[in-house]
Amino acid sequence: MWRNEKYHSVPEEDQGLDLGDRKIAGDIGYDDDDSIRQTSKGPQHSKLGPYFQDGQRRIDYVLTYHVEKSTRSRHSSSNSFVKSLRDSLSRSFRRSRPEPRPQEDPEIASQQQKLDYHEDDMRFRRDEFEQKLMDMGLELEKDEGNKIPGVGFLKIHAPWSVLCREAEFMKLKMPTIKKYDVSPGSNVVEKINLFIHKVTAPLYPKVMENRVQTEKHLSYPFSREKQHLSLLANGVYTSAYPLHDVSNVGNVNLLYEEWASYSIFYKYQPIGLIRKYFGEKVGLYFAWLGVYTQMLIPAAIVGVIVFLYGCATVDDNIPSMEICDERNNITMCPLCDRACSYWKLVTACGTARASHLFDNTATVFFSIFMALWATMFMEHWKRRQMRLNYIWDLTGFEEEENHPRAEYEFHVMQRNLKREASSKKLVLPISNLFYFIFYFIFFTKPILIFMVVHLCFIQICVTFVIVFGVVLYRISIKTALHMSSASAFRSNIRATVKTTAAVINLIIIIIMDEIYGYVARWLTVKEVPKTDKSFEERLIFKTFVLKFANAFTPIVYLAFFRGRLIGRPGNYVYVVGSYRMEECAHAGCLMELCIQLCITMLGKQLIQNNLFEIGIPKLKKLIRRRKSKMDSKQEEEFHKTLTRHEKDHFLNPYVGLNPEYMEMIIQFGMVTLFVASFPLAPLFALLNNIIEIRLDAKKFVTEFRRPIAARAKDIGIWYNLLRGLSKTAVIVNAFVISFTSDFIPRLVYQYVYSPDGTLHGFVNHTLSYFNVTDFQPNTHPIDPMFLGYEVQICRYKDYRDPPWSDTPYELSREFWNILAARLAFVIVFQNVVMLMSDFVDWLIPDIPKDISVQIHKEKNLIVELFMKEEQDKRLLRNRQSNRSPHQPRSRPASHIQTNNH
Amino acid sequence: MWRNEKYHSVPEEDQGLDLGDRKIAGDIGYDDDDSIRQTSKGPQHSKLGPYFQDGQRRIDYVLTYHVEKSTRSRHSSSNSFVKSLRDSLSRSFRRSRPEPRPQEDPEIASQQQKLDYHEDDMRFRRDEFEQKLMDMGLELEKDEGNKIPGVGFLKIHAPWSVLCREAEFMKLKMPTIKKYDVSPGSNVVEKINLFIHKVTAPLYPKVMENRVQTEKHLSYPFSREKQHLSLLANGVYTSAYPLHDVSNVGNVNLLYEEWASYSIFYKYQPIGLIRKYFGEKVGLYFAWLGVYTQMLIPAAIVGVIVFLYGCATVDDNIPSMEICDERNNITMCPLCDRACSYWKLVTACGTARASHLFDNTATVFFSIFMALWATMFMEHWKRRQMRLNYIWDLTGFEEEENHPRAEYEFHVMQRNLKREASSKKLVLPISNLFYFIFYFIFFTKPILIFMVVHLCFIQICVTFVIVFGVVLYRISIKTALHMSSASAFRSNIRATVKTTAAVINLIIIIIMDEIYGYVARWLTVKEVPKTDKSFEERLIFKTFVLKFANAFTPIVYLAFFRGRLIGRPGNYVYVVGSYRMEECAHAGCLMELCIQLCITMLGKQLIQNNLFEIGIPKLKKLIRRRKSKMDSKQEEEFHKTLTRHEKDHFLNPYVGLNPEYMEMIIQFGMVTLFVASFPLAPLFALLNNIIEIRLDAKKFVTEFRRPIAARAKDIGIWYNLLRGLSKTAVIVNAFVISFTSDFIPRLVYQYVYSPDGTLHGFVNHTLSYFNVTDFQPNTHPIDPMFLGYEVQICRYKDYRDPPWSDTPYELSREFWNILAARLAFVIVFQNVVMLMSDFVDWLIPDIPKDISVQIHKEKNLIVELFMKEEQDKRLLRNRQSNRSPHQPRSRPASHIQTNNH
Repeated sequence: MWRNEKYHSVPEEDQGLDLGDRKIAGDIGYDDDDSIRQTSKGPQHSKLGPYFQDGQRRIDYVLTYHVEKSTRSRHSSSNSFVKSLRDSLSRSFRRSRPEPRPQEDPEIASQQQKLDYHEDDMRFRRDEFEQKLMDMGLELEKDEGNKIPGVGFLKIHAPWSVLCREAEFMKLKMPTIKKYDVSPGSNVVEKINLFIHKVTAPLYPKVMENRVQTEKHLSYPFSREKQHLSLLANGVYTSAYPLHDVSNVGNVNLLYEEWASYSIFYKYQPIGLIRKYFGEKVGLYFAWLGVYTQMLIPAAIVGVIVFLYGCATVDDNIPSMEICDERNNITMCPLCDRACSYWKLVTACGTARASHLFDNTATVFFSIFMALWATMFMEHWKRRQMRLNYIWDLTGFEEEENHPRAEYEFHVMQRNLKREASSKKLVLPISNLFYFIFYFIFFTKPILIFMVVHLCFIQICVTFVIVFGVVLYRISIKTALHMSSASAFRSNIRATVKTTAAVINLIIIIIMDEIYGYVARWLTVKEVPKTDKSFEERLIFKTFVLKFANAFTPIVYLAFFRGRLIGRPGNYVYVVGSYRMEECAHAGCLMELCIQLCITMLGKQLIQNNLFEIGIPKLKKLIRRRKSKMDSKQEEEFHKTLTRHEKDHFLNPYVGLNPEYMEMIIQFGMVTLFVASFPLAPLFALLNNIIEIRLDAKKFVTEFRRPIAARAKDIGIWYNLLRGLSKTAVIVNAFVISFTSDFIPRLVYQYVYSPDGTLHGFVNHTLSYFNVTDFQPNTHPIDPMFLGYEVQICRYKDYRDPPWSDTPYELSREFWNILAARLAFVIVFQNVVMLMSDFVDWLIPDIPKDISVQIHKEKNLIVELFMKEEQDKRLLRNRQSNRSPHQPRSRPASHIQTNNH
Repeated sequence: MWRNEKYHSVPEEDQGLDLGDRKIAGDIGYDDDDSIRQTSKGPQHSKLGPYFQDGQRRIDYVLTYHVEKSTRSRHSSSNSFVKSLRDSLSRSFRRSRPEPRPQEDPEIASQQQKLDYHEDDMRFRRDEFEQKLMDMGLELEKDEGNKIPGVGFLKIHAPWSVLCREAEFMKLKMPTIKKYDVSPGSNVVEKINLFIHKVTAPLYPKVMENRVQTEKHLSYPFSREKQHLSLLANGVYTSAYPLHDVSNVGNVNLLYEEWASYSIFYKYQPIGLIRKYFGEKVGLYFAWLGVYTQMLIPAAIVGVIVFLYGCATVDDNIPSMEICDERNNITMCPLCDRACSYWKLVTACGTARASHLFDNTATVFFSIFMALWATMFMEHWKRRQMRLNYIWDLTGFEEEENHPRAEYEFHVMQRNLKREASSKKLVLPISNLFYFIFYFIFFTKPILIFMVVHLCFIQICVTFVIVFGVVLYRISIKTALHMSSASAFRSNIRATVKTTAAVINLIIIIIMDEIYGYVARWLTVKEVPKTDKSFEERLIFKTFVLKFANAFTPIVYLAFFRGRLIGRPGNYVYVVGSYRMEECAHAGCLMELCIQLCITMLGKQLIQNNLFEIGIPKLKKLIRRRKSKMDSKQEEEFHKTLTRHEKDHFLNPYVGLNPEYMEMIIQFGMVTLFVASFPLAPLFALLNNIIEIRLDAKKFVTEFRRPIAARAKDIGIWYNLLRGLSKTAVIVNAFVISFTSDFIPRLVYQYVYSPDGTLHGFVNHTLSYFNVTDFQPNTHPIDPMFLGYEVQICRYKDYRDPPWSDTPYELSREFWNILAARLAFVIVFQNVVMLMSDFVDWLIPDIPKDISVQIHKEKNLIVELFMKEEQDKRLLRNRQSNRSPHQPRSRPASHIQTNNH
C-alpha cells in the first residue's frame, strides 16, 4: 500500500496551497475518490481500465515503441490469429522505418547482429529518457509485447505534486473557495435574455456543465519535454498519446449522446465538456464552428429572401420582357466563325429570365449586408472567444511555444556534423564539389525560401493553365457541337457545355486540392522552420494560398475575364490558332458564375465530406480487416480482451485541426467573396455545416486517438485569414456588382439615356450595330439564310459606334460614361462598406459587458481579501509593537501635527 | 524619535519580500540613505526641502484647502505685502467657489454664521478623510496659514510598508537580485548596430540611465482613493499635487540641462529619466514625440528632393513651355462677367511654372512613399512602445481605471435626490411641470447624447459657413478689384486675393480652435461620463472632430470643390444672387491648395507655439505680478523663504497631455493627408517639432506643478486616431493626385490622344472652344476689344464638344475617358497602397527581435530558479520520508515495473 500512501500524502504535505486543496483537486479533474473506488472494486476491473497494474494510479499518457526481437520471441507462443495480426502489424511498422529488417531469417546473421546493436542503442536511449522522466517526478510502468506483439507500451502517471508544480509554471488559474454571486440584474434586457433562454432551452444539450466538473481528469501536456518528441522523430518511440477516458463512462457517453449524434443537430454544442475532454484548442475550434454556423442562419434567411424576391419580380423585369418579346425582332451576330449562323435574341429568353434571379437590385443590398455580416461575425467571435477565455480562466495566460522543433534541432545538428565532415574532407575538393553545390542549393535558407515562393508560384500557374485548358475544352466542344448536331440539339448546347465544364472544373479542383495539401507540407518540411508555431503558421499559409488559388481561379475567370477580351465582330480575338474567345450569354456572365459556384460548393462539400471523410476511413478499415484475416466477430472478441491503451493504439492518430479549419475557410470565402452573384451560398454552407459539426464530433470521439490537450487563447492565424478574406470580399463584391452584373448599365440608362425614366429600350441600348460586309474573309457564316431571310445588319452586345458614324466600331461615349459610373460605384461601395464595417467594429465592444463587469468584480474581491489580510497583519504587528518598550504612543492620530506659527 | 524608529523598523518586519530588500528599495527610488543624510544635516535644511517638520519623512503628496476665517485671523499679523498677496489670492479663490463670501464685513452676521457652519462642515469632512488616510497607513502633517495666508497644506507621507502593499496590488514588477547577461552577439547586424551607436554617440544626452536609478523617489499614485477626488470636486480641498523633487538637485538639473534646453535640439531625449520623474504617461508622450520627429527626417529629405526635382525639371516641362510660348496665341474666355475681358493664356505662364514644382511625376511617388511612411511610423512606434514596456517592466500590467468619476457619482446622487424631492412635491404638479421638462431635456442620457451629436454637427456647419464666407469674400474682392484697378495692378490681383484669403482663413481657424476646445469640454462635462477614461476619450474624440473639421475644411474645399461647380461659358453657376463661382488657375487648383497649406502650417505653428504657449503665460505672470504689487526683487526674496510645497503652489496646475497630442495629430494630418500637393510639409513639421520638444520640456520642468505619475502602457485613443488618419490619407491622396492635379489627363493624353507620344499639344487638348455669340445676355465683357482684336471663339478649360459639333457644349468622349482613368487610378492607388501598407505591417514584427529573445530568456531563468527550488524541496522531503517508517523503498527507479506476461 505504499503507492497509495504516497499518492494521498502529497497534497497534505504540499505547501503554498492552503485554500481548499481538496476542492481544487476536484475542479481540475484530479479526483481523489477515483482511486479509492477502483481499489474497492478490485483489480479485475482495473486491468481493462486506464490504470497501472496496481489498479490505483491512473495512466495519463502512453508512449509506444518497438519491442526487440529477443523479447518478442519469448512471448510468441500465442494462438494463430494473434500471430497473423502481429505479422501484418510488424509489416506496417516496418514501412515507417528506414531500415530494412529481416524477420526470422537466420542466414543473414551479421545484419541481424547490427540490428540488435541498433535495438540495444534504442533501448539505451529509452532507458535514459525514462530516468529523466522519473527525475521529473513522474511514475512509469512498462508493458512489453503483451497481447499485441511487437509493441511496447510505456504508461506514465503524473502524481499530484508534479501536476501542481507544472500548473504553477503554466500559471493555470485555480478556482478558490471564495465564491461570489453574479447578480441576475433586474433591467429589461436581462428579463428578455431570461425569456429567450427559456424559449431556446430545448436547443441546449442536456449537459449539466456544473455537474461534470468533478468527473474530468486533466490531461498533462507534454510540450515541455522536447526530448521525447525528438525521440519520436528518431524512431526510438513510435507514437505518443493520452488515453480516451472511459473510466468515467458518463463522460464519453455524454459526449456521444449530446454532441456526436446527427439526431441532435439543432442543439448547441456542450463546449465546456468538449474543452474539458479534448483541451482548449479543440474546444475553440468547435466553438468557432458553432458561432460560424449560428451566424450563417440569418445570412441564409436573407439570402433566400433575396432569391425569392428575384423569383417574384422576374415577370415584372422589363429587360427580360423585352428579350422574350417576339415582336422585338432583333437579329444577333453569330457566336462562332462559319459554323454558327445569325440568331434571334428571343432565343436567349430563358437565360435572361434566369439571370434576373441573381442579378437584381436586392443583390446589391445583399452584398452590403454580407460585408457587414462578415464584420459582425468577426466581432461576435471575438466576444465569444473573450467569454470562453474568461470562463476557462485563460485571461492571464500568455502563449509561449518558443522552444525549437525537434526536426529543426536535428537539422541544425546534422548540418553542423556535415560541415565538420566536409571541412575534414577538404583535401578532396573535386569529389565534394557536387556535394557543395547540392548543399548550397538545398540547405541554404534564403535560397530555400526563394525556391518555396517559386514553387508556390509555379503551382498557381499550373492552376491557371488547367483553367485555361477547361476554357479551351469549352470552346472546342461548343464549336464541334454546333457543327455536328441537329438543330433540335442546338438550344441545349450551351447548358450541356456549361454543366460539363463546371463538373470537370470541380473534379480537377478536388484532385488538385489533395495534391496541393501534400506539396505545401513537403515544402514546409523542407524549410525546417524553427518552432512548432512557425511550422504550423507557414504550413497553413502555404496550404491556404494554394488551395485558395485552386478553388477560386475558375470562378475569378468567369466573373472578371470571360467575355471581356473577345474583340468585336469583324475583329475577334483568337487564341491557340483559330479559337475565338468565349462570349457571355446575353444577360452577362453572372448566370454561368452562379452555376459554377453552385456546383463547386455542393460538389466539393458532398464529395469531400462523404467520400473523403466517411468513405475512405471505412474502406481503410475494411482493407485492414481483410489483411488481418479475422472476421468481425473474432475481432470483436479480441477487442474485448484489450485494455484501454491497447485499444487506443488501433485508432487513427490525431492529425490536427488544420484540415478542418481549411475546409471552413474556403467555404467562408465562397460565402463572402462572390455572394453578390449567388445569394444561396450561405444556405448551402449552413446545411453543410450542420452535418459537418456532428461528423467532426464523431471523428474526435470514436475514430481518433485522444489528442493531447493543448491550451490556446485564440484560433491564431485563422483569425487573420478570416479577416483578410472579409476585407477582400468587399472589393471583390464591388467589382462583381459593377462589372459582372448589369446593375450599373441599367442604372445609367434609367437616369441618363432613358427617354421616359424607365428601363424600356434598355436592351436595344446595350446592343451595337454591325454591318455584315465588314466580316473578315472566311469568317462569314456558312448558312447565312438560317433565319430565313438575308441579314445586312446584325447586333452584338457592346457599346460601340455604329458603322455609319465618323468613327465606326470605336468605343462610344456611352461606353466611357458607363465605365466611369462602374468605377465610381466601386470606389463608393468599397469605402462606404469599409467605413460601415469599421463603425460596426467600433460599436461592438470586444469584451462583453457582463464579462468585463465580472472581471472587475473579481479583481475587487481579491483586492479586498488581500487588504483585509493586510489589515489583520498590521493589527497584529501594532499589538506586538504596543507591548514593546520602543513605542510609547499607540494612537494613530498622533501622526498628525498641526503647525501654527 | 519614535517616527524614525517606525520608519526604519518596517522593512525589517515586513514579510514576503526576502530577495534583497534594500536593493529593491533603492531601485524603486525609496532611498533609505536619504533620511539618514537629512538627519545628519540637521533640520535647518529640511525646512525648505520636501520633508515633514522632523526633516526625515519625505512629503510624497500635498493637498491644499481653504483655511477658515477664525484660523486665518489669528495669523493676520503679517507684513503689508503678504496681506495684499493674501487678498488677491483669496479673491481669486473665491471666484472658483459658488458661494459669495463676505470679508471683514460685520454687518451680515447671520450669513457669516452660516458660512462658519459651512466651513465647519468642510473641516469635519476633511478630518474624516484624513482619518481614513491614516487607517490606510499613511502619515500626515498639517501646515495651516503658514506664510501663504488662507491656504492650508496637508502633507502626506507614504511609508515603506504601504508602498509595498500598493505595489503588490498594482502588480508592479520589481527587479530581483538575479541578473543575467544580454550577450552582445557576434553577427554582422550587431556589429553594424554598435558602429551606428558609436557614430551617433554625441546625439545621446549625457545621462547615465543606470546611475540615476537610485536617485528617484516613486510618486505614489492616488488614483485608488476616489473620495479624495470627490472632496476636490466639492471644494473641501482646493488642489492636490506631488512635489517637484529638488532634494536630489542633480535630478532636476540633469533634466534641465540634458532635456529642456534649445541648445541640445539635435540630441535624443533622456526618456528613462523623464519617465522616472514624471511617470510613464508623460514619458510615453515624449517618446512618441521623439519617434515622430525622428521619422520626419527621412520624410523631409525625400520631400525636399521631390521639390528640387520639380525645380530642376521646370524648364523641360512641355505644358508650361507651351503656355509660356508667345507664338501659341490662345485667347481665353473672361474670368468674370462684364468686368473682366478676354485674356491671353501666356499671362498664366508664371502660375503654370510654379504649379509644376508641386505637380509632377515625383509627387505621385512621394505620396505612395508617404503612405508607406505613415505605416512604417505606426509600426516603428509600436516596436518602440513594446521596448519601453519591457524596459519599464510594464509587460504584465493591465490598465484598470473602471471606478466611476467623482462628478459622475455626484451627478447620480444629485439625480436621485432630485427624483426623491420631485416625487415628494408631486402634489404641486403645475409649478413643477417646467422643471420636469427642463430635467427631461437636459438630464436624460440618450437625449443628451443626441444633443451633443447635434451640437457637434452645428459646429461643423458653422465651419462650413465660415469657409463659404471666405469664398464669397474672395469672389467679391476679385470682381471689385477687376472693376476698379488700373491694368498694371491686374496681374497682381490673383496673388493678393489668394494670400489675404489664406491669412483670413488662418486667423479664423486659430480663433475657432480655441472656441471649439471649450465647446468640446463643455459638452463632455454635460454628458457626465462614468469613468475618467471614458471622459478623456469622449473629450478627445469630440475635440478631434471639431478641430479637425476646422483645420481641414478650407483645404478640402480648395482641393476638391473649387473650380468643379462653375458651369461653362454661357451657362455659369451663380451663387448668392449674381456671384459666379471661382475658377481655378489654368494649371489646376494645386497651387492655391499649396499656398493655403503652407500658410496654415507655418502660421498655426508659429502663432500657437509662440503666442499661446510662450507669450500668454508670460503675460499672465506679468499681470499677476502687477496685481500683487511686488517688484521682482521683493518677489524673489519672498520666494526664497518659501518651502518646496509652497513654491509649487504658485506654479500652474498640470492640465494633461491632450492639448499637446492634439496639436501633433493635426500636424500629422497636414503631413499625410495632402502631402501629394505639398511635399515640403514634412520639412515644416520637422522644424516645428524640434522646437516643440524643448518647449514642452521647459513647460513640464519649470512652469507646471509636477504631474501625478500615471502608469500607461500605450498612448491610448491617440494611436487609433493616428491609424485612422493614415488610412484616410491613402484615399485623400489618391483623389488629390487624380482629381486635383493634372497627372491623369497628361498620362491619358500622352498614351491615347497624342500623335507622337509626347505632351506636345496637351494644353490645346485641355481647352474647349466657345462661340462668343452664345454668351447669355448681360454677361458679355464690357471691353471686348481689350486684347486689341475682335474675339469670335474663346477657349476655356474643360472637356466639352465644340460649338460646331452635333452636341455643342456637351461633355465630350475625352471627358468620360479621362474621368474613367481618374477613377481607375483611385481604385488602383488605394488598393495597392493599402496592400503594401498591410504587407509592411505584416513584415515588421510588433515586438523587436532582441526584446522577445530577452523576455523568453527571463522566463526561462525564472522557471529554472523555481525548478531548482522545487527539486531542493523534493530532496528534503525524500530525505524526511526515508527516515519515516511508512516508506520502505527509497529508490525512485522502483516506480517502474516491467510486466512481461
